[in-house]
Amino acid sequence: MKIICLLSVVFFSGVVYSMDKDSLSAKIIGLERAALERWNNGDPSGFLEISAKDVVYFDPFLEKRIDGLDSLTKYYAPARGAIHVDRYEMINPKVQAVENMAVLTFNLISYTGENVHRWNCTEVYRIEADGSWKIIQTHWSLTKPNLK
Amino acid sequence: MKIICLLSVVFFSGVVYSMDKDSLSAKIIGLERAALERWNNGDPSGFLEISAKDVVYFDPFLEKRIDGLDSLTKYYAPARGAIHVDRYEMINPKVQAVENMAVLTFNLISYTGENVHRWNCTEVYRIEADGSWKIIQTHWSLTKPNLK
Repeated sequence: MKIICLLSVVFFSGVVYSMDKDSLSAKIIGLERAALERWNNGDPSGFLEISAKDVVYFDPFLEKRIDGLDSLTKYYAPARGAIHVDRYEMINPKVQAVENMAVLTFNLISYTGENVHRWNCTEVYRIEADGSWKIIQTHWSLTKPNLK
Repeated sequence: MKIICLLSVVFFSGVVYSMDKDSLSAKIIGLERAALERWNNGDPSGFLEISAKDVVYFDPFLEKRIDGLDSLTKYYAPARGAIHVDRYEMINPKVQAVENMAVLTFNLISYTGENVHRWNCTEVYRIEADGSWKIIQTHWSLTKPNLK
């Protein structure tokens, strides 16, 4: 009976134990790159489609944290069609994961014409009831902002 | 036999299922406040003691992410005895958790004499083998930095 119970545990804890660490990292980084590449071409829906209902969000232009996908969708609306990034470098992406949550951190450099922007980014992904990974927390900040 | 197996699952998934959501939020916020209050009195060890070996870290003064507790300990060394914050407000702290990982986000206002500093903060806590919660990711950024 002990063996059957242990099998049940493995079954219950499910998806991630059957995915090794490198595969999970590659999956999470792939989700992020795909959303980022849509963003860089003026399409915020890449991020919105992989964000959970309870997503929370920080960036340097906000007075305070945004709570929830509806609020984030409204906030992103003016970005649609207004953003163009020529190319980007995702520097040293790292994924720290448990069974059903994964933290992705990286530095980012975005190039548009002569402009270069440097970012720090933290994304937290959670596995949802349907087995998909969704972002529950996004934090964008400027790397060494040039302060007055 | 089914009942016994289910009980095993609950036992295996352990600590957090037996702690309700509000208790976990209070615990995580309490850990953060305690570390922050030591920081505000010039003692970075409050954060270092609750950070995991594999902690990653962003703040606005760094060229890139810091990886690992040893590097963070060196980085914090000059802060010891050099920081004093009169009082702070932790605004709207929110905890999003699964069994063994919890994301804490908040806005912070720090007051020192006439100076007021506004921050965005994301902390990710993970439950360790000994049952303690440790920070594996810290992201501090300035709220609406005053850019040149």
